[in-house]
Amino acid sequence: MSLIRIDRNEIEKMDKIQRLHLINSCTGFKSANLIGTISNSGQSNVAIFSSVTHLGSDPALIGFIIRPSFTPRNTYVNLKEYGYFSVNHVYADIIAGAHQSSANYTSDESEFDQTQLEAVYHGGCPVPFVKGSPVKLLCKYLNEYLIEENGCMHIIASIEAIFYEEELIDEQMHLHLEKGKVVTISGIKGYLQPVLLKEFTRATIPPQADITSPLPQIP
Amino acid sequence: MSLIRIDRNEIEKMDKIQRLHLINSCTGFKSANLIGTISNSGQSNVAIFSSVTHLGSDPALIGFIIRPSFTPRNTYVNLKEYGYFSVNHVYADIIAGAHQSSANYTSDESEFDQTQLEAVYHGGCPVPFVKGSPVKLLCKYLNEYLIEENGCMHIIASIEAIFYEEELIDEQMHLHLEKGKVVTISGIKGYLQPVLLKEFTRATIPPQADITSPLPQIP
Repeated sequence: MSLIRIDRNEIEKMDKIQRLHLINSCTGFKSANLIGTISNSGQSNVAIFSSVTHLGSDPALIGFIIRPSFTPRNTYVNLKEYGYFSVNHVYADIIAGAHQSSANYTSDESEFDQTQLEAVYHGGCPVPFVKGSPVKLLCKYLNEYLIEENGCMHIIASIEAIFYEEELIDEQMHLHLEKGKVVTISGIKGYLQPVLLKEFTRATIPPQADITSPLPQIP
Repeated sequence: MSLIRIDRNEIEKMDKIQRLHLINSCTGFKSANLIGTISNSGQSNVAIFSSVTHLGSDPALIGFIIRPSFTPRNTYVNLKEYGYFSVNHVYADIIAGAHQSSANYTSDESEFDQTQLEAVYHGGCPVPFVKGSPVKLLCKYLNEYLIEENGCMHIIASIEAIFYEEELIDEQMHLHLEKGKVVTISGIKGYLQPVLLKEFTRATIPPQADITSPLPQIP
């Protein structure tokens, strides 16, 4: 197997679409989430994101990246207006609708009307969730950090509620996303379904051999 | 199937380890990367991260989350000292060593000596890469943003070079990570290998029916 090297000056000279594919696929597998929002005028919106990341568990915080000057701009406007939004895991049965939500719909078109995704509401909250999604979060906008290096915004939000299908959770409170057919995204085109290889316990440093203790008796 | 709801006040009261499992697994599948660094005194270090995220392709930027007051503190000190570091994709054959790198080794112990991970060097650069990893990045530290909500640091870095196994790339310059057995992490214990479901083209809005054109002739 041959290892190919591409340097920054070559990346900068690449065709724009090829560079999108390469750079989007070079950091590893990504989370696949549909972010649901509602505007103050009641217009719902849902759009796919692959940058939602765990930031800490106490307090329970998430972050994701948005480029305010580009699609999905509606998500950004809505979540700042209303303050709450939903994060819904994409699962194998809805990948076509989830991907279609990345098309450039106008702010008066709801992706729930334009795609096969169906809205569902939980606990009287007006924020739309995605029907069938096996894990969903209700989040509250807290802050944003402008990444000066490229004009992106890092949105910080708290987890206000977690909804999950009962059979996904184990006794340690780990959610087995693979049991809900949750997918991962690679680059800008690939949708993949992960298969569990192994679970590990917390890594610790193995005890050193104690060289001061007497050698074991030979039986 | 029954949908369970857990609210923030219940999350805050959970056992610490159970909360770690739940909150770490509730945002979706995560990238699995080994970050390799070197100190100014020549001490190498490698540690696993599951927060490396694509930030933009022009310029090619990545971000990841570090908690300076906790492990893996050595990574943070080293990458600020030397300025360059490597990002190496974890693949199925090295998940045990990769997970073990999360143990709390001291700054004078290299995880390359303490685990089964092997260091390799590319192009005369002193930054250690992980032998066998099918996709590796050489990155340059650019900036950091303190997330005031929990004291984490969001590290911003440029991609200076990409190394990949030749057979992973397609004609669009998308890296097929699944062909390199690259894994994804779920929560704090699960390592999974993704299987490709489908590739999509860029989503566009379907053309509307043109109601001004004459009805088609009935043959």
